[in-house]
Amino acid sequence: MTFRQKHLLGIEPLHPEEIRTVLDLADQYVDFNRGSSKHADTLAGLTQINMFFENSTRTQASFELAGKRLGADVMNMAMQASSIKKGETLIDTALTLNAMHPDLLVVRHPHSGAVDLLAQKVNCAVLNAGDGRHEHPTQALLDALTIRRAKGQLHRLNIAICGDIAHSRVARSNILLLGKMENRIRLVGPPTLMPARIDEFGVEVYDDMREGLRDVDVVMMLRLQRERMDGGFIPSEREYYHRFGLDADKLSVAKPDAIVMHPGPMNRGVEIDGEIADDITRSVIQEQVEMGVAVRMAAMDLLARNLRAKLDEGRYA
Amino acid sequence: MTFRQKHLLGIEPLHPEEIRTVLDLADQYVDFNRGSSKHADTLAGLTQINMFFENSTRTQASFELAGKRLGADVMNMAMQASSIKKGETLIDTALTLNAMHPDLLVVRHPHSGAVDLLAQKVNCAVLNAGDGRHEHPTQALLDALTIRRAKGQLHRLNIAICGDIAHSRVARSNILLLGKMENRIRLVGPPTLMPARIDEFGVEVYDDMREGLRDVDVVMMLRLQRERMDGGFIPSEREYYHRFGLDADKLSVAKPDAIVMHPGPMNRGVEIDGEIADDITRSVIQEQVEMGVAVRMAAMDLLARNLRAKLDEGRYA
Amino acid sequence: MTFRQKHLLGIEPLHPEEIRTVLDLADQYVDFNRGSSKHADTLAGLTQINMFFENSTRTQASFELAGKRLGADVMNMAMQASSIKKGETLIDTALTLNAMHPDLLVVRHPHSGAVDLLAQKVNCAVLNAGDGRHEHPTQALLDALTIRRAKGQLHRLNIAICGDIAHSRVARSNILLLGKMENRIRLVGPPTLMPARIDEFGVEVYDDMREGLRDVDVVMMLRLQRERMDGGFIPSEREYYHRFGLDADKLSVAKPDAIVMHPGPMNRGVEIDGEIADDITRSVIQEQVEMGVAVRMAAMDLLARNLRAKLDEGRYA
Repeated sequence: MTFRQKHLLGIEPLHPEEIRTVLDLADQYVDFNRGSSKHADTLAGLTQINMFFENSTRTQASFELAGKRLGADVMNMAMQASSIKKGETLIDTALTLNAMHPDLLVVRHPHSGAVDLLAQKVNCAVLNAGDGRHEHPTQALLDALTIRRAKGQLHRLNIAICGDIAHSRVARSNILLLGKMENRIRLVGPPTLMPARIDEFGVEVYDDMREGLRDVDVVMMLRLQRERMDGGFIPSEREYYHRFGLDADKLSVAKPDAIVMHPGPMNRGVEIDGEIADDITRSVIQEQVEMGVAVRMAAMDLLARNLRAKLDEGRYA
Repeated sequence: MTFRQKHLLGIEPLHPEEIRTVLDLADQYVDFNRGSSKHADTLAGLTQINMFFENSTRTQASFELAGKRLGADVMNMAMQASSIKKGETLIDTALTLNAMHPDLLVVRHPHSGAVDLLAQKVNCAVLNAGDGRHEHPTQALLDALTIRRAKGQLHRLNIAICGDIAHSRVARSNILLLGKMENRIRLVGPPTLMPARIDEFGVEVYDDMREGLRDVDVVMMLRLQRERMDGGFIPSEREYYHRFGLDADKLSVAKPDAIVMHPGPMNRGVEIDGEIADDITRSVIQEQVEMGVAVRMAAMDLLARNLRAKLDEGRYA
Repeated sequence: MTFRQKHLLGIEPLHPEEIRTVLDLADQYVDFNRGSSKHADTLAGLTQINMFFENSTRTQASFELAGKRLGADVMNMAMQASSIKKGETLIDTALTLNAMHPDLLVVRHPHSGAVDLLAQKVNCAVLNAGDGRHEHPTQALLDALTIRRAKGQLHRLNIAICGDIAHSRVARSNILLLGKMENRIRLVGPPTLMPARIDEFGVEVYDDMREGLRDVDVVMMLRLQRERMDGGFIPSEREYYHRFGLDADKLSVAKPDAIVMHPGPMNRGVEIDGEIADDITRSVIQEQVEMGVAVRMAAMDLLARNLRAKLDEGRYA
């Protein structure tokens, strides 16, 4: 089993073998969570702190449940973004937390790179729960697990990522992960919602859903991140749905067994038709949530093993 | 022992024998909570999620303590009512939660029927912690336990429920429960604060406190729910207290050993005189809070037994 | 071992021997928290409730972690100061909580004396996490532990407490504790930020940093409590920093091995120069946070022992 990371800051530094290690262990936690008794002592004696500088009910809940079911002492800290004015203050917050000797620190922050910066200042394992437009690695891992379980493989698939790519850390982490696993990735959306330097990703780009979805195995819809659009093009919901919302007609050009994904929370009637979202023969949106808890349990379990191994070697202060 | 429910959505579906089962078990938890060590493994391995779409410090605290003392992994989710715009969204929230595999879901919601709707969408046991003007079953059960312990019986008592009946799910659940146990119920309050179809309850109605309280065993005061009065008659606090606030004079017509109840939080000097509330020879208001934790432990314990029994039968997915 | 208190409401009632008992036990918890497994059953079976009527992310986190690591069932209650209008309401809240049978109640309140009042109404052990301008005993104890570990002793030291003394419960508790341990205390700050009856403290007063810091062993900076300054003199940050902010120049007159303390959160460039704060050869600010968790574990452990001893004697209801 290979997983050599101290932190889980992004998909970028992960080796494909490490990704497979997380997913294999997560598969076991899926069964565990479906069982009649779902509490273990895997993280007993460890302290997990969730520090969310952006609100996120479902991601925080997923990490909290993951830690509690594994027996950690879990603490949520409500960080108001308004109280964070300077970079120094984030570092002071990090140093303060570090002095309380957490083992696992789960951080979401509105600024890209803030979680990496914080990780440099602390002794514990840091998990990035989303930073700005940068990365959201556990989302990409849970999406990968969902795809692997639905399609039986995680390579050589045609995968369309659709919608507001430019503002989406979910898209960015997924492009990185699915690329590492040798899938063919298409980005589908209006040119105004595409990232600036798109060439570096090695992907195909479409601004027409019927072309972009043709013969794909996976349709991954994104949330329209209106709150991150500052000043630029903001499409009307109605126009957006007409051109880029996933409905039965647009989906009909994908493979007959193509699956439909959405990271949630959904804007029904904007990014996706409600009936498609609820069609359990196509939509794996609920599975994504289920895989989320399992993937976070796996990631924290693996990071804690590395943490303990280093403690045993006496390399930690 | 008889308790056949999958959920605790209201008092309405409960058989008197089931009510007695909850109260008998709750009696044991009262002793447990008074002991020097109050932590058990009854719910170990289970996940309890508290989802409050309305703020309620004391009810949420009571459920949280109940679950933690029984060894469950307990998670609070702060749901802002503002983020809930459509019925779909409540269902999406329910499905998302369900995918995290909770075992016990405690829900408070401002709309009557919302908790029932949610219960239809999930696999776990749902406890209604108050929905609109509909039901608040654990409040009625804790009131019943308080009465039974104070009076030595829960039948053939004369019980006056006083104040803002129209807006009160507490009143509604209590009327249902105390009626099932064959008590004589009087509703006392201004006609403008009486429910529309009062006949269906099989109760006596008074708009004069001195008549309504004559010879009763139990005086159950209600909180004035100003926040639920939309547009209609809103009495001045002073006028209300003069006519319907419980003071020594009005209480003097009740039986000499009549007990005084209030679900809290109290508006002293509006619904009730402070001295009456603090008179431990008459007031059982603190006991109600104590019984609250015990009743919620009993309810969750019983629901979890049914959940596990069904899991063992393999009837759950 | 000597610790006879039922509550920890302030430093004032503590005997020096009791202070030493807390610090000695806290030393053990420092090692415990630095270990690879930091969860014990010391408080298993007990319920800890944190009730913060003022926001304080770090103090609440410290108490929460302390309780969870010792195995208590810990519950946070978010009390909005706005909902607390009358003294009665605080008492009603106290009585309500008391009926839920907590064992340890941690309370922060904006009004001096509110925590003492509350302690009179409940059966459990109450820990004051800061009340108005009155006391903040665990802060003084963690400061004392930090000093004792850095200087090897906690007596006959020259200690300067600098800044906004008048509005600081931290200063008040520290003056009491350090005085009991027979240290020489200097208060340094503008006369407008000195308490009214300063003579009763038995301290030296300076309004010049270079004089006040001469040859001291410990420089204890305070946070500028702008939110508690109502109407009176409010210095500009720039002027304040020029005269009373700790920088290398002002620190140069202290002993060469003098340590620098701050209770946090710091206003860098107002009370203290950022470089001084980060200089780990002088600053013990991170250690203070670390000692905070350990001191709170020690205090709760000792209070719980007394609680259990009295329960065993049957003296508790």
